[in-house]
Amino acid sequence: QSGFVRLRSNKIFELVVVGIIIFSALVVGAKTFDETTRFTRIMDYLDLGVTIFFVIEIAIRMLAERRFLNFFKSGWNIFDFVIVVASLIPVDGGQSVLLARLLRVFRVLRLVSIVPELRMLMNAFLKALPRMGYVALFMFIIFYIYGAIGSFIFGDINPFYWENITVSMLTLFRVATFESWTSIMYETMEVYPWSWLFYVSFIFLSAFIFLNMMIGVVLEVMQK
Amino acid sequence: QSGFVRLRSNKIFELVVVGIIIFSALVVGAKTFDETTRFTRIMDYLDLGVTIFFVIEIAIRMLAERRFLNFFKSGWNIFDFVIVVASLIPVDGGQSVLLARLLRVFRVLRLVSIVPELRMLMNAFLKALPRMGYVALFMFIIFYIYGAIGSFIFGDINPFYWENITVSMLTLFRVATFESWTSIMYETMEVYPWSWLFYVSFIFLSAFIFLNMMIGVVLEVMQK
Amino acid sequence: QSGFVRLRSNKIFELVVVGIIIFSALVVGAKTFDETTRFTRIMDYLDLGVTIFFVIEIAIRMLAERRFLNFFKSGWNIFDFVIVVASLIPVDGGQSVLLARLLRVFRVLRLVSIVPELRMLMNAFLKALPRMGYVALFMFIIFYIYGAIGSFIFGDINPFYWENITVSMLTLFRVATFESWTSIMYETMEVYPWSWLFYVSFIFLSAFIFLNMMIGVVLEVMQK
Amino acid sequence: QSGFVRLRSNKIFELVVVGIIIFSALVVGAKTFDETTRFTRIMDYLDLGVTIFFVIEIAIRMLAERRFLNFFKSGWNIFDFVIVVASLIPVDGGQSVLLARLLRVFRVLRLVSIVPELRMLMNAFLKALPRMGYVALFMFIIFYIYGAIGSFIFGDINPFYWENITVSMLTLFRVATFESWTSIMYETMEVYPWSWLFYVSFIFLSAFIFLNMMIGVVLEVMQK
Ligand code: NA
Ligand code: NA
Repeated sequence: QSGFVRLRSNKIFELVVVGIIIFSALVVGAKTFDETTRFTRIMDYLDLGVTIFFVIEIAIRMLAERRFLNFFKSGWNIFDFVIVVASLIPVDGGQSVLLARLLRVFRVLRLVSIVPELRMLMNAFLKALPRMGYVALFMFIIFYIYGAIGSFIFGDINPFYWENITVSMLTLFRVATFESWTSIMYETMEVYPWSWLFYVSFIFLSAFIFLNMMIGVVLEVMQK
Repeated sequence: QSGFVRLRSNKIFELVVVGIIIFSALVVGAKTFDETTRFTRIMDYLDLGVTIFFVIEIAIRMLAERRFLNFFKSGWNIFDFVIVVASLIPVDGGQSVLLARLLRVFRVLRLVSIVPELRMLMNAFLKALPRMGYVALFMFIIFYIYGAIGSFIFGDINPFYWENITVSMLTLFRVATFESWTSIMYETMEVYPWSWLFYVSFIFLSAFIFLNMMIGVVLEVMQK
Repeated sequence: QSGFVRLRSNKIFELVVVGIIIFSALVVGAKTFDETTRFTRIMDYLDLGVTIFFVIEIAIRMLAERRFLNFFKSGWNIFDFVIVVASLIPVDGGQSVLLARLLRVFRVLRLVSIVPELRMLMNAFLKALPRMGYVALFMFIIFYIYGAIGSFIFGDINPFYWENITVSMLTLFRVATFESWTSIMYETMEVYPWSWLFYVSFIFLSAFIFLNMMIGVVLEVMQK
Repeated sequence: QSGFVRLRSNKIFELVVVGIIIFSALVVGAKTFDETTRFTRIMDYLDLGVTIFFVIEIAIRMLAERRFLNFFKSGWNIFDFVIVVASLIPVDGGQSVLLARLLRVFRVLRLVSIVPELRMLMNAFLKALPRMGYVALFMFIIFYIYGAIGSFIFGDINPFYWENITVSMLTLFRVATFESWTSIMYETMEVYPWSWLFYVSFIFLSAFIFLNMMIGVVLEVMQK
C-alpha cells in the first residue's frame, strides 16, 4: 500500500496524468473532424488506451487509501470516479455512440480536479452558488412577470416571440443580451406605441440584477 | 387570537403559502398557452381557489395582530395586501379580462415578501434607489443633450430615428446597447462625415455612467 | 448687496431656478417637434423669457459677491456664466439658427451646477479624468497598432472597413462593441483563414483595458 | 560616458524622443492612405530619419551604462532594443515590404516604455497575467466541452458553425459576445427544441467566468 501512496504523490506521475488528460482531450477534438475509416480505428485504439490508463490511475489512488471507502470521502475523488466510470460505456454501433462520445468529452474536467489552482477557482465558484441561487430566483421572478405580461399583451402580434410564457422568457433573455431587441420592440410599438417602456424597464432591471449577481458573487468569493 | 399567531409562525403553514404562490404562478403561466374551452373553466376554478386562499391567509395574519391597524405598519404587509386585493377584480368578459389577468401575474411577487433571502435582496435594492436616482438623472441629462442635438442635426436624414427628442432618446438608448448602432452612424456619416464623434463620445459617456451607477450601487449595498 | 446675498441663498429662489431650467429644457425639447408658425413664435417668446431670467439670476449672484471678480474664482460660476452668455446669441435667420439652438441645449447642464448631488458626481468624474486619460492613451495605442495592421493587411479585401488607419480604427471600435463583428471577420477569413486571431486577441485586449479603466476609475472615485 | 548619462536623463531629450515616436506613428498612419509615387518617396526618407534617430538614441542609452551588458538587465531596455532592431529590416520590394511596415507599427509601443504612467499600467497588467492565465484555462475548458458537444450534436445541422471543434469554439466565442447568437440558436432548435439550454447555460457560465477574470484581476492589481 505504501508503494501506491508514494506513486500517488509522485510529481512525475501527476504530470503524466495531466499529459494523458490533455492527450485524451485532443483525441476527442480530433474525432470532431471528418474521419476516414482507418483513422477512426486508430482513434478508437487510442481512446481505449486512455480509458484503461484512467481506470488504473483511479485504482492506484483507491489502493493508496488505508480503507477502501475512505476514497469516497473526498468530493473530488467522487467527481473523478464518476467521470471515469461514465466513459467506460462501450462505443459500439447505434444510438449509444453519441452518448459515449459525449461522456468522453467530460474527461477534460479531470484537469480541474488535478491542477490545484483550478481546484481553488472551482471551490470558490461552488461557495458562491447559494447566494447566486437566490439572485437567480429573483431574476427568474422578473423574467416570469415580464414573460407573462408579454405573452398576454403581445401574443397576437408575433407568436414566434410571444406565443406563451416559455417562448416569451426566451425572447426576454434575448432582449437582455441586446440581440436585435429593437426589431422586436419596433414591431410591438406599431400596435402599442408605449411598449418601449416594457423593454427599457426590463433591460434596466435585468442588467442591474445580473451585474449585482456577478459582482456580488465575485467580491464575496474574493473575501474568502 | 393566539391561535392565529401560532398559525402565522407555523413553518408548515409558511411552506403551504409558498407552494400556493408557486402553484398560482404555474396557473398564470398555463393560461398563456392555447386553451380549449373546458381547460379554461378548470383554470378559472383553480384561480378562484388560489384567490380565496390568499384572502384567508391575509385575514389570518390580520387577526394575529393585537390591533387590526398594526398590520398596516409593515411595508411588506401593505405590499401583500395590495397584491391580494388587486387580484380580487373579477375575471368576467370584455376589457377587464386582460387587466384581471395582468394583476394576477404580480401575485408571484409575494414570494419576495415571504422568502427572507429575497426580502433582504429587495431591501438592499430599495436602499440603493436614492443614489441610483441621482446617477439616473445625470444619465437622463446626457441623453437629453445628445437627443436634442441629434434631432436638430440628423432630423432630416432619417425621421424614423431622429424625428423629435423622444424618438432620438430611444434611438440613443439603442445605441447605448450597441444594437446595430453602426448602421445608424454610417447613415449620418454620409451627410456629416464627422458624426462618428457624436456616437463614439456618447457611447463612452453612457457606458461610464452606467457602469458607475451599477458598480457604485452594488458596492454601497454590500457595505451595509 | 446683503439683499442679493439673502436672495441667492433663498431656498425658494433656488427651486425657482431649477424650475426655470427644467422649463427651458422642455421648450428646447418642444422645438424638436414639427411646429406651425404660430407655435414657433410662442416658443421664441418663452425662450426670450428664459434667457432674460438667466441673465438676471447670474447678475444677482455677481452682485452678491463683495468684489465683482470673486464671482469668477469658482469654476462652477464660470461654467454657468459661459452657458448663459453662449445662449445670448440671437436666433435670427440663416446659419446661426442651428448654432443658437444647439447652445440653448446646454442650458440643461446648469442643473448639474445647482443640484449638490449632481455636483458631487461631476466632481468625482473630474477627479478621475487624469487616470482615465492614461488608460485611454493605452487603449488608443492598442487601437492604433491593430488599426495600422488591419489597414495594411485587409485594406484590399474591403476598403469600406479597412481603407486607411482612421477608417480601420472606427471599424475596430465597432468590433469592440461586438456590433456585427463576425461578418467583418468571416470576410477576411476567406482570404486569411487565421485572421480570427486578430479579432479575438483584439476583443480580449480592448475588453480588459476598457473594464480596467471603468472599474479602476470607479473604485478610485469611491475611495475619496 | 557622463555626458551620455546627462543626455539620457535630460527632460528635453526625453520630450524629443516622445515627439519622434508620435511623429513615427503619424508617418506609419499616413502610409495607410492612398499614396502618389512622390509622396511615397518623402515618406521613405522620413521613415529612414526616424530609424536613424532611434538607433542613435538607443546607442546613447547603451553608452550611458558603465558596462555595456548592464543595458540588457532591464526588461524595458530589451523591449526597446527589439523594437528598434526589428524596424531595421530594409523596406525594399517584394514580400518583405509588408513585414517591414508591420514591424514599424510596433514602434509606437516605445511610448509605453518611456511614459512612466503607461509603464505602471503595463507592469500591473503583467503582474495580473498568471492569475489571468488560470482563469483563461478554466474558460478554455468550458469552451472545449461546449465546442465538442456542439460539434457532435449540431455538426450536421450547419457545418459552417459546427463543422469541427475549432470552428465550434469560434462560434461559441461569437455566442459569448451575443453576436446574432439567436439566429444560430433558432436554427438548432428546429431540430433539437431543447437546445436553447445549451446556449443559455453557456452564456451564463462564460459571462460569469469572464467577469470573474476581469474583476478579480483588476482588484488584485489595485491592491498592489
Ligand atoms: Na450586440
Ligand atoms: Na449585437
